[in-house]
Amino acid sequence: MLTYTFPENLHKPMYLYLYENIRNDIINQKLQPNEKLPSKRTFAKNLDVSLITVENAYNQLLLEGFIYAIEKKGYYVSPLEFPDKPVIEKTYIEDTKAEQYRIDLKTNSVAEHFPFSTYSKLMRQVLSSQDTSLLVRPPQLGCLQLREAISKHLYDFNGMNVPPNQIIIGAGSEYLYNLLIQLLGHDVIYALEDPGHTSISKVYDINHIHYHYIPLDKYGIMLEPLQHSSAKIVHISPAHHFPTGITMPIQRRLDLLKWANEHQGYIIEDDYDSEFRLRGKPLSPLYQIDQHDRVIYMNTFSKTLSPSFRMSYMILPKSLMSLFQQKLGFYACSVSSFEQIVVAEFIKQGYFEKHINRMRHYYKLLRDDFLDALRQSDIYDSIKIKKENAGLHFLLEYQNNISDIQIKEKAKAIGLNISCLSDFYHKPCNLYTLVINYSGLSRDNISLAIQLLTKLLK
Amino acid sequence: MLTYTFPENLHKPMYLYLYENIRNDIINQKLQPNEKLPSKRTFAKNLDVSLITVENAYNQLLLEGFIYAIEKKGYYVSPLEFPDKPVIEKTYIEDTKAEQYRIDLKTNSVAEHFPFSTYSKLMRQVLSSQDTSLLVRPPQLGCLQLREAISKHLYDFNGMNVPPNQIIIGAGSEYLYNLLIQLLGHDVIYALEDPGHTSISKVYDINHIHYHYIPLDKYGIMLEPLQHSSAKIVHISPAHHFPTGITMPIQRRLDLLKWANEHQGYIIEDDYDSEFRLRGKPLSPLYQIDQHDRVIYMNTFSKTLSPSFRMSYMILPKSLMSLFQQKLGFYACSVSSFEQIVVAEFIKQGYFEKHINRMRHYYKLLRDDFLDALRQSDIYDSIKIKKENAGLHFLLEYQNNISDIQIKEKAKAIGLNISCLSDFYHKPCNLYTLVINYSGLSRDNISLAIQLLTKLLK
Repeated sequence: MLTYTFPENLHKPMYLYLYENIRNDIINQKLQPNEKLPSKRTFAKNLDVSLITVENAYNQLLLEGFIYAIEKKGYYVSPLEFPDKPVIEKTYIEDTKAEQYRIDLKTNSVAEHFPFSTYSKLMRQVLSSQDTSLLVRPPQLGCLQLREAISKHLYDFNGMNVPPNQIIIGAGSEYLYNLLIQLLGHDVIYALEDPGHTSISKVYDINHIHYHYIPLDKYGIMLEPLQHSSAKIVHISPAHHFPTGITMPIQRRLDLLKWANEHQGYIIEDDYDSEFRLRGKPLSPLYQIDQHDRVIYMNTFSKTLSPSFRMSYMILPKSLMSLFQQKLGFYACSVSSFEQIVVAEFIKQGYFEKHINRMRHYYKLLRDDFLDALRQSDIYDSIKIKKENAGLHFLLEYQNNISDIQIKEKAKAIGLNISCLSDFYHKPCNLYTLVINYSGLSRDNISLAIQLLTKLLK
Repeated sequence: MLTYTFPENLHKPMYLYLYENIRNDIINQKLQPNEKLPSKRTFAKNLDVSLITVENAYNQLLLEGFIYAIEKKGYYVSPLEFPDKPVIEKTYIEDTKAEQYRIDLKTNSVAEHFPFSTYSKLMRQVLSSQDTSLLVRPPQLGCLQLREAISKHLYDFNGMNVPPNQIIIGAGSEYLYNLLIQLLGHDVIYALEDPGHTSISKVYDINHIHYHYIPLDKYGIMLEPLQHSSAKIVHISPAHHFPTGITMPIQRRLDLLKWANEHQGYIIEDDYDSEFRLRGKPLSPLYQIDQHDRVIYMNTFSKTLSPSFRMSYMILPKSLMSLFQQKLGFYACSVSSFEQIVVAEFIKQGYFEKHINRMRHYYKLLRDDFLDALRQSDIYDSIKIKKENAGLHFLLEYQNNISDIQIKEKAKAIGLNISCLSDFYHKPCNLYTLVINYSGLSRDNISLAIQLLTKLLK
């Protein structure tokens, strides 16, 4: 007779366990179609469980159609038609493990100095207010408190005048790129900086969006190739181009605005880490000097607060807001209310500005220490440092003829995570230049970093 | 001579204010190309500010290219070429305000009983642990703690065996629908339930995805029209179809699995509120009985915890995991680590299950009270209640001939927010049936709700 063993430390109701076992035996066809099941009373006695346990299990099986009942006769396995048995070997994917390096000069890291206690104080404040806005779906554009805080921050920080109802909060920049694709349509052609961030092109690829790579000169993206392309939307980071660190001068900016206006196109201005420019004040965004509603401004808290935050925002020109409501108005906001409200308080109470200033100061010292150590090293004569004010990285040009692929292999072998300038070019090339992101270093491991760099370049 | 007034309560450095004013005058072409600016010393004296203020402002303007310097002569406005002046009238969009209703029988609301103090205790616990995982970018699939907690919850709750590394956390179901489109390709054809949730088709529309509507019979989505369509992916909610409340019996489930296997297609099983079925245990998901890796399971915390949370998850069949890594491996996780870790603790420490049970109990009582009140009302003889165990809503069929459009207009006029069953059909029709979502009611306003319903249907 059908029997099951109940484990001693069962973490679920017994009827559920019994139900699952019978169900699985039906699915696995151990129990045959129309096979009679034991009567409830006998089954309970045999299994040494209460009658109600068996009754509940049978009722659930009945409800789901796994068994049927005939009055005064009993319970039977339903004659179910199953799909064919699987023949394909199932594959199993392990979580990919991050590689361990002795020194990481590649990954951005702004986390270590996150003001935990302040943030936690604000969280408690927000929670204890038990504001009802914590429990309702955030408005589509994002919580008004946060949009107001961002608007004020942008004004104080670089003189931008942005009404809160043109700001859209989203779960990361990639999420917002996707929204923009859906907003501007799949048929329009984009232009990307070459070199530039590689993740943007991946978002376009996966969405089957056509785009052209446009080269840079010393002022940033070049106008002539852009004009000769069929692109109508150009994606740039004028304040601080990655990885070259180029700051686009005002005339090139005006030329780009002119191009956008003439082509009825748009400029996506990615201002993702203008806060960390180490010299001078942050530059006026294109958005600020645009008089024709052709600039879409983007920025993120993942770089300034911590990569663990998934929160970015974009500012649409007024002319795109009604299109946004019309085409994408059905989407819910993708960031939770609580997190938005806490970040809003963080900005409003002045902690965000303090945090940025503290971090800039910290990175300036870190960079100076690192550059000093480089200057005193054996390799200093054979390298050239460039764009050291660009942000959290600089360029290091070296004078031996190891190819970029080889130098990365060599780096990996000695436990150094590093990128080459050529990694950010569309076409493979050798530029004999490393992109050194020092944000993950600490004073304690600068000398190890120099050691490994020396080993790498000697 | 050029002059500016400094406001008394200036919230930014004076040099910044001065810089912005000059910059704006250059952009607005109040200052002419090659116009000479006052010397630093004279300007400082005239403005009654320190020399360093003017120096800093000029330096920033120089850096950005707004002005140029001629040695021993002074500073001049750069001869910039501006885009043409705007001619288009700018439009301005106000934040859309939610309409105010006296009674809302349309909107889902599970928020009021959110365990604030427990959640806040967990947040403090997580924060005080200062775990480094709070500060790093969450793994692509989501934080392991949360995926493990979900895996265990699914096992305890409905016997599902899901390895954590097939679970993907995302910022809401719409976000995950978008990921699935990118994963499965833009060319494949989808099938949707008719009637069904309307937001899914909007996501497909905006992505230019082809889909067919498939009608339902009393067992759920119909197989024959599905087989005759060219669809390879079907999007269903078998545990609890919205809005009809249909629970798909096992044979239809098996037939669908067979269909998916034969067509090498996929079933997207949207289990979005199976937790709130008010009778019996939650039904075994299709995912659980699928033996051919053809089911993608989706669920969300926005329904069970609070709509203010933007957190959903999906479980991919093993066969799709490697495709996911290959095609979408570049995307960052879209939910912040902190929120994920707190929800993980909420589940692991048993609060999630308690919360669900408490809410089910609460809704059961609320529904019973509401139905009792309906039974005692004047309209009870002329209406029929259906599917009252479906979840947080039931269907109310009425016997007068007012069209669905008219009844909604009448409802709006008396301050009642309500939907018709026909709202969820692809083609306009009159079904004389309301979908009553009672989750936002409280015992205090049941009688008002009955009053308004009576007024509406009499």
